[in-house]
Amino acid sequence: MTSPHFKQLRQAYGFDDVAIVPGDVTINPDQTDVSLTIGNIKLDIPILASAMDGVTDVNMAIAMSKNGGLAVLNLEGVQTRYEDPDKVLDQIASCPQSEVTALLQKLYQEPIREDLVQERVRQIKAAGAVCAVSVAPANTKRLAPVVEKAGADILVVASTVTSARHISKSERGLIFEELCASLSIPVVVGNCVSYSACLSLVKTGVAAVLIGVGPGAACTSRSVLGIGVPQITATIDCAAARDTYFEETGRYVPIITDGGFHRGGEISKAVAAGADGVMLGSIFAQAKGAPGRGYHWGMANPHPALPRGTRIKVGTTGTLEQILYGPSSLTNGTQNLVGALKNTMGLCGAANIGEMHKAEMVIAPSIITEGKVWQFAQGQVK
Amino acid sequence: MTSPHFKQLRQAYGFDDVAIVPGDVTINPDQTDVSLTIGNIKLDIPILASAMDGVTDVNMAIAMSKNGGLAVLNLEGVQTRYEDPDKVLDQIASCPQSEVTALLQKLYQEPIREDLVQERVRQIKAAGAVCAVSVAPANTKRLAPVVEKAGADILVVASTVTSARHISKSERGLIFEELCASLSIPVVVGNCVSYSACLSLVKTGVAAVLIGVGPGAACTSRSVLGIGVPQITATIDCAAARDTYFEETGRYVPIITDGGFHRGGEISKAVAAGADGVMLGSIFAQAKGAPGRGYHWGMANPHPALPRGTRIKVGTTGTLEQILYGPSSLTNGTQNLVGALKNTMGLCGAANIGEMHKAEMVIAPSIITEGKVWQFAQGQVK
Amino acid sequence: MTSPHFKQLRQAYGFDDVAIVPGDVTINPDQTDVSLTIGNIKLDIPILASAMDGVTDVNMAIAMSKNGGLAVLNLEGVQTRYEDPDKVLDQIASCPQSEVTALLQKLYQEPIREDLVQERVRQIKAAGAVCAVSVAPANTKRLAPVVEKAGADILVVASTVTSARHISKSERGLIFEELCASLSIPVVVGNCVSYSACLSLVKTGVAAVLIGVGPGAACTSRSVLGIGVPQITATIDCAAARDTYFEETGRYVPIITDGGFHRGGEISKAVAAGADGVMLGSIFAQAKGAPGRGYHWGMANPHPALPRGTRIKVGTTGTLEQILYGPSSLTNGTQNLVGALKNTMGLCGAANIGEMHKAEMVIAPSIITEGKVWQFAQGQVK
Amino acid sequence: MTSPHFKQLRQAYGFDDVAIVPGDVTINPDQTDVSLTIGNIKLDIPILASAMDGVTDVNMAIAMSKNGGLAVLNLEGVQTRYEDPDKVLDQIASCPQSEVTALLQKLYQEPIREDLVQERVRQIKAAGAVCAVSVAPANTKRLAPVVEKAGADILVVASTVTSARHISKSERGLIFEELCASLSIPVVVGNCVSYSACLSLVKTGVAAVLIGVGPGAACTSRSVLGIGVPQITATIDCAAARDTYFEETGRYVPIITDGGFHRGGEISKAVAAGADGVMLGSIFAQAKGAPGRGYHWGMANPHPALPRGTRIKVGTTGTLEQILYGPSSLTNGTQNLVGALKNTMGLCGAANIGEMHKAEMVIAPSIITEGKVWQFAQGQVK
Repeated sequence: MTSPHFKQLRQAYGFDDVAIVPGDVTINPDQTDVSLTIGNIKLDIPILASAMDGVTDVNMAIAMSKNGGLAVLNLEGVQTRYEDPDKVLDQIASCPQSEVTALLQKLYQEPIREDLVQERVRQIKAAGAVCAVSVAPANTKRLAPVVEKAGADILVVASTVTSARHISKSERGLIFEELCASLSIPVVVGNCVSYSACLSLVKTGVAAVLIGVGPGAACTSRSVLGIGVPQITATIDCAAARDTYFEETGRYVPIITDGGFHRGGEISKAVAAGADGVMLGSIFAQAKGAPGRGYHWGMANPHPALPRGTRIKVGTTGTLEQILYGPSSLTNGTQNLVGALKNTMGLCGAANIGEMHKAEMVIAPSIITEGKVWQFAQGQVK
Repeated sequence: MTSPHFKQLRQAYGFDDVAIVPGDVTINPDQTDVSLTIGNIKLDIPILASAMDGVTDVNMAIAMSKNGGLAVLNLEGVQTRYEDPDKVLDQIASCPQSEVTALLQKLYQEPIREDLVQERVRQIKAAGAVCAVSVAPANTKRLAPVVEKAGADILVVASTVTSARHISKSERGLIFEELCASLSIPVVVGNCVSYSACLSLVKTGVAAVLIGVGPGAACTSRSVLGIGVPQITATIDCAAARDTYFEETGRYVPIITDGGFHRGGEISKAVAAGADGVMLGSIFAQAKGAPGRGYHWGMANPHPALPRGTRIKVGTTGTLEQILYGPSSLTNGTQNLVGALKNTMGLCGAANIGEMHKAEMVIAPSIITEGKVWQFAQGQVK
Repeated sequence: MTSPHFKQLRQAYGFDDVAIVPGDVTINPDQTDVSLTIGNIKLDIPILASAMDGVTDVNMAIAMSKNGGLAVLNLEGVQTRYEDPDKVLDQIASCPQSEVTALLQKLYQEPIREDLVQERVRQIKAAGAVCAVSVAPANTKRLAPVVEKAGADILVVASTVTSARHISKSERGLIFEELCASLSIPVVVGNCVSYSACLSLVKTGVAAVLIGVGPGAACTSRSVLGIGVPQITATIDCAAARDTYFEETGRYVPIITDGGFHRGGEISKAVAAGADGVMLGSIFAQAKGAPGRGYHWGMANPHPALPRGTRIKVGTTGTLEQILYGPSSLTNGTQNLVGALKNTMGLCGAANIGEMHKAEMVIAPSIITEGKVWQFAQGQVK
Repeated sequence: MTSPHFKQLRQAYGFDDVAIVPGDVTINPDQTDVSLTIGNIKLDIPILASAMDGVTDVNMAIAMSKNGGLAVLNLEGVQTRYEDPDKVLDQIASCPQSEVTALLQKLYQEPIREDLVQERVRQIKAAGAVCAVSVAPANTKRLAPVVEKAGADILVVASTVTSARHISKSERGLIFEELCASLSIPVVVGNCVSYSACLSLVKTGVAAVLIGVGPGAACTSRSVLGIGVPQITATIDCAAARDTYFEETGRYVPIITDGGFHRGGEISKAVAAGADGVMLGSIFAQAKGAPGRGYHWGMANPHPALPRGTRIKVGTTGTLEQILYGPSSLTNGTQNLVGALKNTMGLCGAANIGEMHKAEMVIAPSIITEGKVWQFAQGQVK
């Protein structure tokens, strides 16, 4: 019953499936360097906020930059479709749950205005912040020159899955080589999850790659489309592509694991798997002053015929500063993200992100066992 | 402690255990071809509705055909036992849950009437639809000539497990070679789950094979009989049999993964595993106008001494058109099945079903982890 | 970091982890032979009822024998400690849950009376039934001659773990070679779970071996002692020992998988794993007239300092005949056990137990996935 | 798609993932020797109580010693920060849950007083008990001479992760070789989890090593820091380091598995994995008279900016004697820990801890399966 026709499947792992093994040598957390460099931009911390309407607006972009990180403004969301996005955000936050999918479908039909694109970039730059903005591949040719001219520092081109080569009869696809050559600012592209797709993308000349497609099993890409790769495996595979390309060319293209994060320890795991940076959505949607007003929704641009993602109440847990640097009054790992990463790097003896890539990890699934249920019943765990 | 006597077990996978890896090249979904050919019948979409009483009646068969798919009418259910099946279906739908097993056991004792068999076929054909009907192996010799004469286009011969060779003292078993030779219409046979069983069946001359026995762990075949193979592994194995046979003979016998589907992404996964088509029950039982009136029951013919399956309330979620083509207002993957499949094929760079068979898949179990429980508790996932 | 000192662990499987693959050939269930022979005793069906006080009393032993199976009477339970065991059983059944461990600890302090041992054996034989009785190793030397003289047909010597060699300063251990040689009736011994332990036991001349130690993760042997092997692996390993011994000597010593059964499909799985018979507790405790009166408790002889197992309410679901042969009104696999086994054997093309040992099995864990939780939430499964 | 850059992950196992296989020979539990020797101190039983404020105070240290075990007093908790620790413990026990993290953060800011360090040691010694005390690496140079002078028998130097070499600009790290050379009493060090880290530590001359970092998936080290190794794998790996070192030098350095225990069977599993002793927290926090007054909190020294662990209600289940030696009225494996270990060793034919290291174990995950859920629903398990 052997046949050359049997399809082979490879095992993949997510955040919950692994744990980091501490090192043989430890190092003082204060002596660790967690900076991330994208093109000519050096960030003090390797943490980005997602280009999602509940996470990043102009104020958040400014605040993240002041704190050493980077929040990416989505140019295809409410910020560039509406003169007064706050009014629209209020409307989303106050909409009953049963009507929210329809409301989102309607709100995102409004056209993107180039004047608002320029305005948002200028607002961020005016505050002295690093300005990163995000567009989908289909709008890139039109909007890339606009944002460059307005003074943006980084252009992110992102969609659920972005490939180096897209086949279409109706339109000539976006060629990343041409885009990178035509712009003076670094281009970040995503998302991808496999070694070969990532290798194709880094070869086009981009400055960084976003990693992550349908990372969670509950992710709608997984249930609606069947597509997705758990983040640890996606990160390991794309890190291997980055390293192969670096070995061949000497150019280091950082990879940024994007999506699926819920707790601080997962950032350390992503870095141990090979990430140079991480991009978080829901944790920052919980910040005081986040545009989502305690809500978060998965898609900036809900598909009119095939909606994926819905509005989720995440609440507000603390200031952006607390989330990044503490002090924390919570014990669940959603605050003091930078402190936690530096602590873990210290316990692994890693002085910088590159050394942390070498930390050992084990597969240690945190499945719900009967023993665990028993402990819950006994009140021995929270 | 090694011995030649230790029995070996092979790992098997179901829908929830795997996820599709997007491709290195993407393609516009509009340019994908999802057609399926069974014998001389070409269907625009590779989606069939099950031969179950809560799913397919004459109206559903007509509607599915008009929409490019195929609904198989069960000739051993209420449609051919009762002159007025709607009255019986009303009775089932309004029966209290505690009495429904007994009611089903009683209702399916009524004999199958050949005049009604003919009548149902003629009703479907009169509407200009493709007519596919289903019988069990034991009734095939008697009913096959009847349905052919009445004008059916496809004959499905199906039972929980159907083998190419059945041993019995009391009766001469059905010989598929003889059946296929004696009929002018294509014969679809099922169900089977292993490479060797599928290879035996395709060799008999059938036009397609249904794949699936006890696919879910909650499936009663699994709990009552201990029998079952998760659908991804069953599909991979039977696809290998199809490919082996095609290589040897040049005849391509499509395989149709039947059962265990609950969400759109699972259709893409089945196709990526090697399926040429899929057969769905409960999702179509949720269509407006489905004969189950919001209910679904597992067995057309409940065993009087060993009942398996019971009536389940599935509700009514939308029209057949919405389920197949959207637009969807739901974000759970049960609507716009065709759009979802085409989208996934686009993200995998697959222009047709055959190319989609080559899509990479990873094992990415969606087990409930503690991290997930934590997220539920935090309200971060639905 | 390789060292010869790293301990190796082997993967083990239980009932829930596996499923049977149907065969390439099927056979009419009526033509299957499910008999089991222990020594000179041939049973029509390979199903035994446990030597537990909630399962087997004199009446149950008689009824099981009449139905073709075998119920083993525990000679160290209430039946031989009390003249009127029914009064004691009433007391256990009516005791509040909070006091039941203490009550059981007290009730089983009463001495075993040899006159009652004889009386119980005679009652069973007087009804024309096959009489099997069970004792612990420590009491075997004293009671074995008594039960043989009283006319018992089979002697079962069982404890949590029974080995062919027991080291003790205080007493000379039971030597099974001597026991088998000294008795004219077949000796069944258990429990064991490994290839080597089973091989040691079959070599002593016993007529059958019971397989199973702490089969379930919830089993108290597992949580209190850390000891246990899931039943599929235990059965596969001990079946290999039986086959090795048979190959060497020509003597076939059947193995009986004992414990951990909850649904009919598990019996088929045990047989596919290599079992010649199965021993069930809780399913028979649910029979009308079972001595437990709807309750079941794990240990006939609760340890005064280290109790394991407690009283569980199992309810009463049907008559013994229904449980064994149907007809069933339940769809959960706890009734018509023989019908289910014969059906499965038919679907695997196995004409007898020996052929069923060759059925293919896959590892198909029935873990609770997110997809499954989603289905539960949608009401799509029970 | 092969590349030398793909990171490899190793599978790890915890208590719930494994089970012990009984031996081919059994032995009378009364004949088993479970003693543990640390340096010049021989303990009758291999069980230690954690250096946590809810577990060990002076009275508990005395009681454990009288019972043959060892409770380690934390010198950085309330006992050495407060003249009257009982008043502080009352305050913690009566604090509302919502305020407890802040209260703990405040209480542990109080300085450690050397006079109280000496006083606690003297109190324990005055009762004729073995006195073991615990300090963090940062305080070791200061406090080690104090405790030695006060008469302590064993010094434990412990932190979340302790390595043989710590890199820091601000301070000269603790050198274990120097510490061991400078003290006349045995030094126990921890915690570590890997072969290489453990090997580095045993080479420094310590008398024993504590094993365990973030053992449980719910452990805050795992969620906040991403760090942790399940205890069975950690124990197996460190036991290999111990055995390698013993082979090379002839010096046997016992390893003590510390943390993650909830039931007696887990002690047997740790020993079968290679542990010479075990250290328990929450089980002893449940003892009558334990300082936690029915509560337990994870960190003696809650980090002011990154708190991990919170107060958990564990209740009071019995006396220390009952927990260690029974008799037990509970069937959940939290009482008669010594009896359970001796029983298991008997069933494995292991006369002492060293022989128990050779017991076979299987991977037998106790995941919650659908079958199990079904059993729960049927009331067939607790």
